[in-house]
Amino acid sequence: MKERTWVIGFDADDTLWHNETIFENVHQKYRALLARYHDATTVDRTLYAMEMRNLEFYGYGVKGFTLSAIETAIELTAGKIGAEEIRQLIGLGKDMLDHPVELLEGVEATLRAVAPGRRMILITKGDLRDQERKLAKSALAGLFEAVEIVSEKTQAVYAQILQRHQIVPERFLMVGNSAKSDILPVLALGGAGAFIPYHLTWAAEKVEELPVTNPRFLHLTSIRDLPRIIATLEA
Amino acid sequence: MKERTWVIGFDADDTLWHNETIFENVHQKYRALLARYHDATTVDRTLYAMEMRNLEFYGYGVKGFTLSAIETAIELTAGKIGAEEIRQLIGLGKDMLDHPVELLEGVEATLRAVAPGRRMILITKGDLRDQERKLAKSALAGLFEAVEIVSEKTQAVYAQILQRHQIVPERFLMVGNSAKSDILPVLALGGAGAFIPYHLTWAAEKVEELPVTNPRFLHLTSIRDLPRIIATLEA
Repeated sequence: MKERTWVIGFDADDTLWHNETIFENVHQKYRALLARYHDATTVDRTLYAMEMRNLEFYGYGVKGFTLSAIETAIELTAGKIGAEEIRQLIGLGKDMLDHPVELLEGVEATLRAVAPGRRMILITKGDLRDQERKLAKSALAGLFEAVEIVSEKTQAVYAQILQRHQIVPERFLMVGNSAKSDILPVLALGGAGAFIPYHLTWAAEKVEELPVTNPRFLHLTSIRDLPRIIATLEA
Repeated sequence: MKERTWVIGFDADDTLWHNETIFENVHQKYRALLARYHDATTVDRTLYAMEMRNLEFYGYGVKGFTLSAIETAIELTAGKIGAEEIRQLIGLGKDMLDHPVELLEGVEATLRAVAPGRRMILITKGDLRDQERKLAKSALAGLFEAVEIVSEKTQAVYAQILQRHQIVPERFLMVGNSAKSDILPVLALGGAGAFIPYHLTWAAEKVEELPVTNPRFLHLTSIRDLPRIIATLEA
């Protein structure tokens, strides 16, 4: 391994494989289920507020989402929602947990191009078992030296991970679709961030402003640009 | 650190702090909620079967338990359960996630006696955020070199953990209340197991037979016996 080689961290959901599209599909069914009680905007807003309120209890992931969706449905229908409809919500949650893993375009080829001679680490949040399942189904697991499933992606969490794996922040590039979770905390540590937005962003991951003036902030339109970006960093 | 020093792994739920008593308390409320539909035995059996069926989706922990409890209630009442009762079940789940952490008798003193000069690791399964919360509330976090929250405690998982932390199995003692999850897989790797049963054992953790003929199987009645056991191992 060359002196100048960087360590590459990858986010998983909506960076390596589709996730928000699966949630959006479920949101559509959820709105339809509650359509005779409330308009879509009210449903979305109430569910999101419930998810944020429950975050300290549930954290991220499908199980917490399902519980918040049930609680929201009871609230929005003033208890008129039926057991059969709640059973359907539980079913939607299980469908998500059983969903095939669909890699984003270019992911596998890019990761295989970047991997030789480089340490790669997966850093993701969500339900432990669900993320393990998706990684196992993705056929990418063998490419990563380590997999870190965390409950939050804060600067302190990244600092711990880098320390644990003896990674120098100055030679660490994090690749992800969330400026808030994948890019800003890593930049704050002195690392670099390759931001590759997904066509959908969950409201909780949105940021007001991108750190466009930071030279270590790299805005990519496709993961296929990654090998070129890494070559530039290592030059 | 002396040559002969062992590394000590600790399970968390029902080894360091009470857990099954909290679940048992919720089970009682659950039986009461469904008492006008079914007797307690039927409720318990159906809920347990549902939890086992859902394990591949949900893994261990409070969120999956809550979802299984809702699904079971719908099934056992043939859909007659009301939204208000389901709201109560969600509330029971949140109460568990918000429950104070109550250390078992002797835990803190024992861990503080064992810690000096020794590497200690926490190895637990369940919901990521919930386990992190309990550890933070326990005031024990600073005693552990590492915390491993895993989705299953199999021999392969222990092997990975020991390798990651460069621990020799022959000098690794795992302390826990579940023969199935804490003791047998570690013995199979060549390590030792200190089995300290809790007064309640979840059905899924029960084993037919204890490995009483294995000299590395150590059956303790209290965690207070641990320093003496470790002294013997290191002698």
